[in-house]
Formats: sequence, C-alpha cells, structure tokens
Amino acid sequence: MSMNGAESLVRTLVAGGVDVSFTNPGTSEMHFVAALDRVEGMRCVLFLFEGGATGAADGYARMADKPASTLLHLGPGLGNGLANLHNARRARSPVVNIVGEHATYHRRYDAPLTSDIESIARPVSAWVRTCEDSRAVAQEGAAAIAAARAAPGGVATLILPADTAWGEGGEVAAVPALPERAKADEAAIRAAADALRSGEPAVLFLGDRTLRREGLDLAARIAAATGARLMAQVANARIERGAGRHPIDRLPYPVDAAVDRLAGTRHLIVVGTTPPVAFFAYPGKPSELQPRDCAVQVLADPSMDQTDALERLADLVGAPKAAPVPSGAKPEAPTGPLNADTVGLALGALMPEGAIVCDESITTGRNFFPASRFAAPHDWLQLSGGSIGLGIPMATGAAIACPDRKVINIQADGSGLYTAQALWTQARENLDVLTLIWANRSYAILKAELANVGANPGRKALDMLTLDQPPIDWVSLARGFGVEARRVEDLDSFLAAFRAGLSRRGPFLIEVTLG
Amino acid sequence: MSMNGAESLVRTLVAGGVDVSFTNPGTSEMHFVAALDRVEGMRCVLFLFEGGATGAADGYARMADKPASTLLHLGPGLGNGLANLHNARRARSPVVNIVGEHATYHRRYDAPLTSDIESIARPVSAWVRTCEDSRAVAQEGAAAIAAARAAPGGVATLILPADTAWGEGGEVAAVPALPERAKADEAAIRAAADALRSGEPAVLFLGDRTLRREGLDLAARIAAATGARLMAQVANARIERGAGRHPIDRLPYPVDAAVDRLAGTRHLIVVGTTPPVAFFAYPGKPSELQPRDCAVQVLADPSMDQTDALERLADLVGAPKAAPVPSGAKPEAPTGPLNADTVGLALGALMPEGAIVCDESITTGRNFFPASRFAAPHDWLQLSGGSIGLGIPMATGAAIACPDRKVINIQADGSGLYTAQALWTQARENLDVLTLIWANRSYAILKAELANVGANPGRKALDMLTLDQPPIDWVSLARGFGVEARRVEDLDSFLAAFRAGLSRRGPFLIEVTLG
Repeated sequence: MSMNGAESLVRTLVAGGVDVSFTNPGTSEMHFVAALDRVEGMRCVLFLFEGGATGAADGYARMADKPASTLLHLGPGLGNGLANLHNARRARSPVVNIVGEHATYHRRYDAPLTSDIESIARPVSAWVRTCEDSRAVAQEGAAAIAAARAAPGGVATLILPADTAWGEGGEVAAVPALPERAKADEAAIRAAADALRSGEPAVLFLGDRTLRREGLDLAARIAAATGARLMAQVANARIERGAGRHPIDRLPYPVDAAVDRLAGTRHLIVVGTTPPVAFFAYPGKPSELQPRDCAVQVLADPSMDQTDALERLADLVGAPKAAPVPSGAKPEAPTGPLNADTVGLALGALMPEGAIVCDESITTGRNFFPASRFAAPHDWLQLSGGSIGLGIPMATGAAIACPDRKVINIQADGSGLYTAQALWTQARENLDVLTLIWANRSYAILKAELANVGANPGRKALDMLTLDQPPIDWVSLARGFGVEARRVEDLDSFLAAFRAGLSRRGPFLIEVTLG
Repeated sequence: MSMNGAESLVRTLVAGGVDVSFTNPGTSEMHFVAALDRVEGMRCVLFLFEGGATGAADGYARMADKPASTLLHLGPGLGNGLANLHNARRARSPVVNIVGEHATYHRRYDAPLTSDIESIARPVSAWVRTCEDSRAVAQEGAAAIAAARAAPGGVATLILPADTAWGEGGEVAAVPALPERAKADEAAIRAAADALRSGEPAVLFLGDRTLRREGLDLAARIAAATGARLMAQVANARIERGAGRHPIDRLPYPVDAAVDRLAGTRHLIVVGTTPPVAFFAYPGKPSELQPRDCAVQVLADPSMDQTDALERLADLVGAPKAAPVPSGAKPEAPTGPLNADTVGLALGALMPEGAIVCDESITTGRNFFPASRFAAPHDWLQLSGGSIGLGIPMATGAAIACPDRKVINIQADGSGLYTAQALWTQARENLDVLTLIWANRSYAILKAELANVGANPGRKALDMLTLDQPPIDWVSLARGFGVEARRVEDLDSFLAAFRAGLSRRGPFLIEVTLG
C-alpha cells in the first residue's frame, strides 16, 4: 500500500510504539496533521506553545520509558521548544522530535520562515536528519525512533520538508532492532570492589536507571556489605522513592554544601551518571566537587547496563541477598506557620501512593526531599538540565503517560511563568495534575547567586530579580487557561486545599503565598 | 580606569548609544546585572520570558532606529528568545544580543546548562563571537554594536563567559565608525528608468527604508511620471502611513491573490527588499510570484542607500518635483455587527496621530490596511519573519522607544498566547500600550492552509487547530499579569472600550469576541 510521506511516517511511528504526539503545528506540518485522521492509534495532544510540547515529551518519556513524538513548525518552532529539549537531553529522555520545513525546492528562495534548522537542532540532539524524498520518510522515521531509544536515550530530530510529507510513494518501515547495552568491564568491577573493601571512605554516586527500585536495592546491599555511602546527582530524571524503597540523598546544589558532603571521600564509584561538577563556576570555588585526593572511577556510564554492573559488584563484595529494609515513618500533617518546612512536611504526609512528583521547586523545595523520604511510594522527577520552565509541561506529559496516577507539580513561580500555557492542555485533556505554585514573587535563587559570584547588588540589580511589581495573580492566570485555582495564605488553608486537590480528578492549581 | 569585564561592557554599550537592555538574566549574567548599579544611563527592562525580551528589542529597534541590548541566560535562554530574534533578523532590526555562558575554564566539565551556544545563535545572527578574556570584552561589545548597526541592520550575538564578566582589566571601548551605505550602480538606475519608460506594465516593489515618508514620496513621484504601480512586501518592519503620506498596498499573503496582483507585470523594480516569493510552497503553486515573462531588477538591496537610488531614478525619469497629494478621508466610526470589517473601520476612524500599530492580526487583520489608509498619521509594524508571538513583545519595545506615542497592538489570539507574559512588563513599566485581542479561538490561518496544501481534514486534524476547549479567558490572563482588561461582544461595546483605552495612559487590553 502506497501513501504520502506524512502518512507513512505516522504509520511507522505507531507501528514502532510511538503513539503519542505533542504538537504545535503550522502550515508546513499540515499533511502530518491531515494523516492523523487516516491512521488509528496516534494520540495527538495540542499545546499553545512549543516549550509545552517538548517538556511534555520529556515527562512522558521519563514515565513511559519510551519516546513520544513532537510536531514543531520550522526553525522558530524548534527554537521555542529548545529549552525543554535541552532538559530532555540532560535527562537522557528518548524523544522523536519532528520539525516541519519548507518544501525542498522552496528552500532556495529564502522565504521569511527559512532558517538553518539543523544548526538549531544539533546542540540538543543525539541524531539530526533532513528528509529529501517522500519515499524515504518512513525509513528516516524508523531510524529516528531507533536513535532516540539507543542507550542512554536522546533527542532524535527529523526535519520534514513539506514536499516529502505530501509526496507519494511512502511505505511503512520497521524500526531496526536496538543493540544490547554494553556491560561493564570485569576489571572495572574488580577495581570498584577493591576500592569499596579498602576500608577508606567511599561513595557510590548514582544516576539514571540505578535510581529505580531495583538499582537502589542493589546499591543498598552493596552499602550494607561495605559501608559505602549512596549519593545521587543534584538533579535526576526519575527516582523511585517512598515507603519500601531505599532512600537516597542527593548532592546539594550550592557548591560549598556539595563539597562538604563529599569531604573525606577517598573513592567515588560512579554508576549511571558522570562525576559531580558544580552547576556554575564561581570566583574562587572549584568546578570539581570531590576532594583532590579522591579517586574517581566510572563503573558504568549512562549508556551501559547499570543494573548488571551493580549486580556483579554486589556479588563480588559479598553483599547480603536481601536489601536492608528501610525504616522510618512518614511525617504527620504539620501545624504552625505556612512556610517551606511545613509545606514539605505536608507533601510527605499526604501524597498518595503512586504519585508522580514533578519538581521545579528551585529554592523553595530544597528541604522537601528529606521530608518525603518515607511518604507513600512515588516517583520524583526533577529539572534535569537547569533550563527553567519544565515543571508544568513535564507534569502534563507524565499525566498522559500515566492516566491512573496523581501528578503533583511542585512549582516555583518564576520558573512556572515561562511555560504556564501548558495549563490549558491540562484542562483540554482533563489531566489529573495538581499544581502547587510557590509564590515568593522573586527570582530567589538569583539573589543568592549575586552573593555567590561576589557581586554586591544595589537597587537596580535587585530590581531585576523581583517579580512583585505588579504581583503575578496565579489564580487569574490558571482560570485564563481554564484550570480551577485557589490561593492560600496560611497552613490550614493550604492543607484544606491540598486535600481537596488530591481528592478530586482533573487539573487544579493552588497558589501558595510564601514570604 | 580599570574595571571588570561586565562593567566595561555596560559602559561601552552606553557610550555607544545602546542605553536600553531587555533582560531575563540568570546566574551567569549576575556580574552584568551588578554592573548596572555602578553605571548611569542604562535602562534595564525585565521580562518573565526571553521571547518577550527579544521581541521588545525588535520593536524598539524599528522605532528608535538603533539597537537595544538583550541579556539572556546561556543556550536555553537564547533558545527561548530565538523565534523573535528570527523576526528581528527578517526585519533587519539592529540588536546587540548578549548571552551569558559558563566560565571559560568550566565549559569542559559539561555542567547541566552547557550547550553549543554559537550553533544556536548562528541562524539568527549576522555576527557571533565568544569572549575569551575580560580585557577584551569592551572591544567585543563595541564590535557587536558596529555589527548590529552595519547596513542593513542585524542581530549581533556576543557570548559572555562568566569569568570574562567578573575578571578585571576592562576599559571602555569606542564603536568603530560605520561605513557609508553603497550607492546603486549608475547602469542599474538607467536600466530601471528604461524599464519604467518602456510603456509596459511596471511595479516598483518596495521594502525597508523606502517605506518611510521620504522614500514613499520619491516612489510616488516616480509613479506619477511613469505610471508604475507601487507595491510593498507582504510583511514589513515599519511603514509610515496615514493622512499626508503616500498610501502603498502590500502584496497579499495567499499565493493565488499575490499572483493575481502581479499579473501582467513586465518589469519589477525592487528597492530595499528581495523579489517576491511565496511564504510557503503548496502543491501545484509557484514559489515565485511574478509572471514568468516579467523582468526582475534589484535596483538597491536592503544594505544599500535606497533613498539615493530613488532620488536618482526620479531625476532620470523626469519626475515632478513634488509628490502628488494623496486624497482620501478617514472612515467614519462604523455601525452594525462586530466583525473584522467594522473593527478595521474603527481602527481607521479612531487611531490617534502618532499611533504605533503593532500588527500581529494574522487572518483577522487582512482587510485592516485599506481601512486605515487615510487614518491619522501613524507607523505600522508587522510580523516580519512569520514566527508568531511577536506582537505583545514588539508593542512593549516600541513603547519603550517612544514613550509619548500611543501603541496599539492588534493581536490574534493564538499568536498572542506564545508570549503573553510580556503584558507583565507593560504593567511593571506602565507602558502606554492598548492591546486588542481578536478572539476567534482557533488557528484560523491553518484551517485555510489545510485546504491550500490539498489536505482533506477530518475531526482529529481540525481538533489540532481549535482553541475553544476550554476557551481562553484573556481578561483573566491580563489581570494575572497585572493589566486591566475588558471583554466586548458587540460593536458598541467595542467602540466604547476602544475609546476608553485610547483616552487613558498605561496598559489596557480588550478581548474582542469574533466568530
């Protein structure tokens, strides 16, 4: 059966397991849109802004462990989606990123929307290709799926000129088989075991798949046998946490605190991530966070079979067969003033089993993690690439991936304002997302950063970090996008609103006024 | 006097006439922000999203005829600003685009926010450079100003690693003198004159500086002498229009209408732009819009001295010394139903002298241009690069450039939702911007484009073009950002609200419900 390129692509995507498309299409994508009517099995989710679509693709991939597609409009549409593709890249989320382009023969006229799409795409993409023939579109689409899914996972950008979408001769293509993940060297396993049994202070530094339940159990068994400490990166794509899962601390974001946390460590064994580095450089502070005399060994990088590496290491160090049972109780619902501490306790006390926490809390949320250590079992998704504006879109995508689970988006106000339009998609799709906005009405992190870089701010500088003139009214914004919302200014009101939000289905937003 | 690199850059910008900075800073930009307190004369305007800052820089440049600076946060911040930098590039607006970057020695650690900033910047930039030394920052800043101002005007992107901002040894640098614009060849002038005097149908196809009053007068004199028709591009950076200015029609956006408009033309003389091409390619429709037997001559490209070319051409064809006086009257305030026709007449009847119209009306506004031909004298700024989401930011920047003039942003709803956060900046700076939202609650242009590309849409496809489930409540959105707003659903209410908005100072938004 022959069909046009666009239809062959949509059918190839569905056959290859890519059955959700997060879209903000324009003229050059109209044949892809039209093909949706002829192909069963593709769910299309519309966004008002491309950053919503790409952030949703990231959140979806983290929870579904497979790629969705995007659908973006030429270079500017890709540009609008770039910041959250950067986050997806850093989360190693598989994404099939489809960007429409002018017809091949039209490019030379340099029409107003013409630009060098590949140059924009490359910094966020593991794979970039431009179709040149409608008969090859499906093959390219299948290759894009394979590239996105290849370990450790990445953004595959397929650029689709309009005439390759409308041209005939397309046929569905099969996705090439994925190669198995590489296994860690036996010598590396032995070296890690030697380091852990040396009696010197050691840290197992974990990321990626090691932060799922199976990996954490293995790491906890190794720690029980060797006394090594477990530590995760500052920001992680997904951690399986809560009652019954082995708790893991993250490295703190501030450089001094991170250096303190690693002080005295002689061996850093890295699995599923890269060695710890400062988020930013600061005058007189180090870029590398471990002590100078600490030996660093990457046992398995994120592209490798991390569970296998941990299993073999556990065997070699004679770890107990069963992971130690984590002991601890979730906090009681708090009383007292409304602040970051009590809000953190409320999260730990009340979040339901199976919750998906999408965390873009920035400064407000720095103490939320310990308070939710023994909460009901849940997943915790973080801002992975430091590009703010991920939270609301990521929550939207996670809710599409897991329609039966409650999504709780804990959201700094300044960051949320980058991509608040994704609230409309939550309303349109009636997604079960509860958004908690921490309204401190400033870029609070930057006030600290001004001091960190040694700058001595005056009125004009501080004015650039303040969002209270006029104050943002999140309740109005949410209603503008069709999402019901409430503002709370004391703890009892917060607890009541939070419980109400948890007990209903569908999108709801609470603006939490914090000093 | 020695100072750090950031301060030397801010002082160089101010000394070079770049005294407005549209910012959304992060950690890597904190020294630039801190320097603002030590330097007099730089106005800093904060945005909640980078697309607001870059669109404002475009609007500012169109009205001020000089660059502002931006201040953006690494690759993702640049990505968020990219779509409106694309529009600035197509408008040939000078912009000094400053992008913070990790410290030079920190880049090799591939910290989470690291990316290839130059690759992202190049497609929108006429000039890209990365500073490597704090002592050279001011020189690079001066070179960026010169590059932005070099004819025809463009985006100059200066990437500023944090240590070159905080490092010492900076000194203020002077902006190199700009070369004079090239003059049109005498042979080209003669060839154009011959074509115009041939008696065969001819069109003077105009863009850029020829659409200011002086250029239009010259073009009108040439037309009076030769019978040539005058025509502007579909989308133009700035047209000086209204009573006393020579009216000029634009080429229509739809391909068939554009081909019709140019039918029979034998000579196309292009001044200040490029020959007309279709915005998009469509199956079976041409990319080039003039007839096949039409001779096309570029008399002066946008980088050249366009006024000189028109003056010499006017002399050679023996044009009358005075431009013909355009005759016509502005429309009366309309009566009847509320629709695109009556709204267009209301604009023509009521806009005040000196108004700056920022037009991102898309489909709704296609008939606004004729209805405002004899309105009070005003400037009309259009979406130049086809990347939607420019209107609200552009209006913000135009209001900063011209604080004594009324800015009227005529805004399609779908497009406005990309960058509505710029409304907050209008409130914060108390800018005199009246925003009229055309609420048709759909991507109306795409419904037409589906038909244009030959696609036959069904329910799922049309669903991707519809914004009414739930409807966007623009009055709530505006209030959320601190801007007073009103919704109107009939013509009398619209006229009353429009008059009220015109008679007050400060930002105001009217949501105009259109079917």
